[in-house]
Amino acid sequence: MPTVTMIGGGQLARMTHQAAIALGQCLRVLAVSSSDPAAQVSADVVVGSHDDLSALRSAAQGATALTFDHEGVPLAHLQALEADGVTVRPPSAALHYAQDKLAMRRRLTELGLPVPDFVDLAGDHDAARTRLIDFGERHGWQIVVKAVRGGYDGRGVWLLDDRDEALDVFDQTDGSVGLIAEQKVPMRRELSAMIARSPFGQGAAWPVVETIQRKGQCAVVIAPATGLPTDVAEQAQQMALRLANELGVVGVMAMELFETDQGEIVVNELAMRPHNSGHWTMDGAVTSQFEQHIRAVLDYPLGDTTSRAPVTVMANILGADNAPTMSMDERLHHLMARMPDAKVHLYGKGERPDRKIGHVNIVGTPADSVDDVRERAERAAQWMSRAEWTDGWDPHS
Amino acid sequence: MPTVTMIGGGQLARMTHQAAIALGQCLRVLAVSSSDPAAQVSADVVVGSHDDLSALRSAAQGATALTFDHEGVPLAHLQALEADGVTVRPPSAALHYAQDKLAMRRRLTELGLPVPDFVDLAGDHDAARTRLIDFGERHGWQIVVKAVRGGYDGRGVWLLDDRDEALDVFDQTDGSVGLIAEQKVPMRRELSAMIARSPFGQGAAWPVVETIQRKGQCAVVIAPATGLPTDVAEQAQQMALRLANELGVVGVMAMELFETDQGEIVVNELAMRPHNSGHWTMDGAVTSQFEQHIRAVLDYPLGDTTSRAPVTVMANILGADNAPTMSMDERLHHLMARMPDAKVHLYGKGERPDRKIGHVNIVGTPADSVDDVRERAERAAQWMSRAEWTDGWDPHS
Repeated sequence: MPTVTMIGGGQLARMTHQAAIALGQCLRVLAVSSSDPAAQVSADVVVGSHDDLSALRSAAQGATALTFDHEGVPLAHLQALEADGVTVRPPSAALHYAQDKLAMRRRLTELGLPVPDFVDLAGDHDAARTRLIDFGERHGWQIVVKAVRGGYDGRGVWLLDDRDEALDVFDQTDGSVGLIAEQKVPMRRELSAMIARSPFGQGAAWPVVETIQRKGQCAVVIAPATGLPTDVAEQAQQMALRLANELGVVGVMAMELFETDQGEIVVNELAMRPHNSGHWTMDGAVTSQFEQHIRAVLDYPLGDTTSRAPVTVMANILGADNAPTMSMDERLHHLMARMPDAKVHLYGKGERPDRKIGHVNIVGTPADSVDDVRERAERAAQWMSRAEWTDGWDPHS
Repeated sequence: MPTVTMIGGGQLARMTHQAAIALGQCLRVLAVSSSDPAAQVSADVVVGSHDDLSALRSAAQGATALTFDHEGVPLAHLQALEADGVTVRPPSAALHYAQDKLAMRRRLTELGLPVPDFVDLAGDHDAARTRLIDFGERHGWQIVVKAVRGGYDGRGVWLLDDRDEALDVFDQTDGSVGLIAEQKVPMRRELSAMIARSPFGQGAAWPVVETIQRKGQCAVVIAPATGLPTDVAEQAQQMALRLANELGVVGVMAMELFETDQGEIVVNELAMRPHNSGHWTMDGAVTSQFEQHIRAVLDYPLGDTTSRAPVTVMANILGADNAPTMSMDERLHHLMARMPDAKVHLYGKGERPDRKIGHVNIVGTPADSVDDVRERAERAAQWMSRAEWTDGWDPHS
C-alpha cells in the first residue's frame, strides 16, 4: 500500500493517521518533536522542522505523496521538493495562494469571486499609509488589518474600530510583516464550504456549515448551516469547487465565507488541508475530511460526503484560563457518564489558555432540535475545558 | 492520560489503536513482529511473544491496564501478572472460561443457560471412547468434536457426519489435545450478542446480529439480525450481560448463539475481546466495540450502543485461493469508484487463502432493503478478495 507523508505533527496529522489506518496505511509525519500529537500515535515519524529542506527530503523519501497539516512550509522548499520529483499535494503553485492572503484575494478577484474590498499595504511606507487612510475613510474605519502570511486562529489579524487603532497597528508592524487592510463586512454569520479535489479532477463537497468564532478562532460548527437557502449553499459549494479547479488544489479545502446582512456570500479565507470546520465529518458524514484528504492526495476516487444525521454540532475543547485541578482523564469520565453519545476527540496536547486540545461531536437524531444538539456539544466542550457544568450556550443571547 | 497495553498485534489491536487515538491515548501492543497489523501503526510497540512471561511483564510496565486481542496467553502467566499487581482485564478468572470450552460449558450449565448437549472426552482412552460412542448414538451421530483449547476460525472444530469419522478424529487426536463432543443443533441461523461490562459493573449491549459462517469462520454480519423477535433478542442480550457479570468479565464480550429450528437460542462460543461479529459497530453504531473495550478496560462509563442506521452489513475480505494479479491498492481504487459509501478497513496483512485481511461495512439508509445492503457488502468484499465483480450473494440461494 502507498505511504503518505504529512508535514506537521499536530492534531490534523493525528486524525489523518487514524483515517490512514483503515486504508491499510500508516501515515508518516514530519514532526518537530516526538511528543507532537501525531508523533505520539504513528509508527512512522521523522523528527525535524518544516523549515529545514533536508528534513523535508528525509520525510519525502520513498513516499507516494507529500501533504501538509499547516501552511508553514516555505514555498522555495516545496519547489525544491517538486524539482526532486516528489509528488507534492496540493502543489506549490496552489499552496502559494493559501500562504499569501494578498495573492489569494487578487486571484479571487480575477476569477470574479466575491471578496471583501481590500488594499495592499506593502511598499513605500508613506504611500501605503496614505492608501490605508483612504481605505479606512471609505469604509468608515470598519476595517480589518491582516498579515499577508503566517496568521492563524486569530493571530496576524487585527480587528479595528477607528483610525487611531489602525494607524497604530500599521506603524508598529511596519516593515516586519506584509499587511493588507480589508473591509469589515456587515454579516449575519460565518460559513465554511469544505470540498475535496483529486488530481484526476474529481470534486466532492460536504454540506455548507456555520462556524462560530470566539477570540478570533473557530469555536463551534453547526452542520449543515441552519436555514441557509439551497441556492446559496450550492453557490458556496460551486465557488469552492471552481476555485480548487482553477488553482489546481489537491486534497481537501475549506473556503471560509461571510454571509452578509443582505444574504450574500463573500470569501474570507482559504485552507488547503483538513480544517477545523470539517471536524464534524468524523462522526457526522459518511466520509470524514481526513479519509477524503488521503483519498485525494493519492488520487483515489473520492468518498461519499453525505451527512449521517440531520444535524451534527462540533465544539472545540480549549485550554482554560485557569487549568482545572481535575485531570483531563477524570473530566473524560464525567463527560462519558453524562453523555454516552458524545464523540470526544483528544489531541494529546498540554493545556494552555485558548489552545485547541480536542473537540466533541454530537450527532443529532431526527428528534433533536439544532439548539439542543448545539447546547449539548457546547456544554460538553466547556466541561472538558474547565471542569464546570455551565450552560453550554444561551439560545436567547 | 492512561496507557492500555494490548497483548497481540493483530487487526483487533490495530483497530483498538484507532479508537485509542480519539481518547487521547496511544495503544501499547505486544506484537510478535514489528510488521504485525497493529505494530505497523502504533508508536508504542513491544516485540515479543505472549508465551513469554518476561515479554508480558515488559509490555505491562507502567500500563494502566492490560488486555488482549486473542485468548492465547497461558493462564499461569496471567496469574503471575496479577500477582505482580498488573491490572489484567478481563481478569484470569474470567478469561479461563474463554480459553477452556469445557469449563465454559460446565459453568453455563450451572448457571442454567442453554447450551447444546456435550460430553467430556478427557481421561482414560477407552472410557472416553465409550462415552463418545454413547453420546454419538444418542444424537444419531449429528455431533461436533472440538478441541477444549486453542481453536479459532474453524480450527480445532470437526463437523462430523457418522460414527467412523468421529472415531477417526478421536483416535487421531487422542492425548495430544483435550476434546469434547457436542450435539449438532438443528438451527435456522447463527447469532451473536455483543456486550460490554466495566469493572464498576456497568453493562451495555449492542443489537443482536446474525452471523453467516463459511468454511468455519465468520464471513458476513447483518446488524441487527433480521426478523428476530424482540423477546428473543432481549433474552440473548440478558444472557450475555448476566454471564459477563457472573464471570467478572471486563471489556467487550461476544456470545455466539444458535437460533434453533424451534426459535430458541443456545450458546455456542464466547470471546472476551473485540470480535468479528462487532466490526459493524465501527461505522454502524454510535460507539464502536473498540472504543467500548477501552472504556471498559479503563473503567470509564460505557458509550451509547445505538445503531446509526436501520441496517449495517459487514463482510470480511479474505485472501483468495489464487492471489489476484491486480494489487490491493488498485482493487481499492476500483471499489471506491463503484461504491463511494463503502467503509473499507484493511489490516496491513499479506494475502493467504481464506485469511481475514480486512472488512467492508455498508451502512444502509432507511430506503435500502436488507438484501440490497447485504448484496453490496458481499460484492465489495469479494471484489477486494478476488478482483472479480461477481454477484455478491444470491438472495434465493
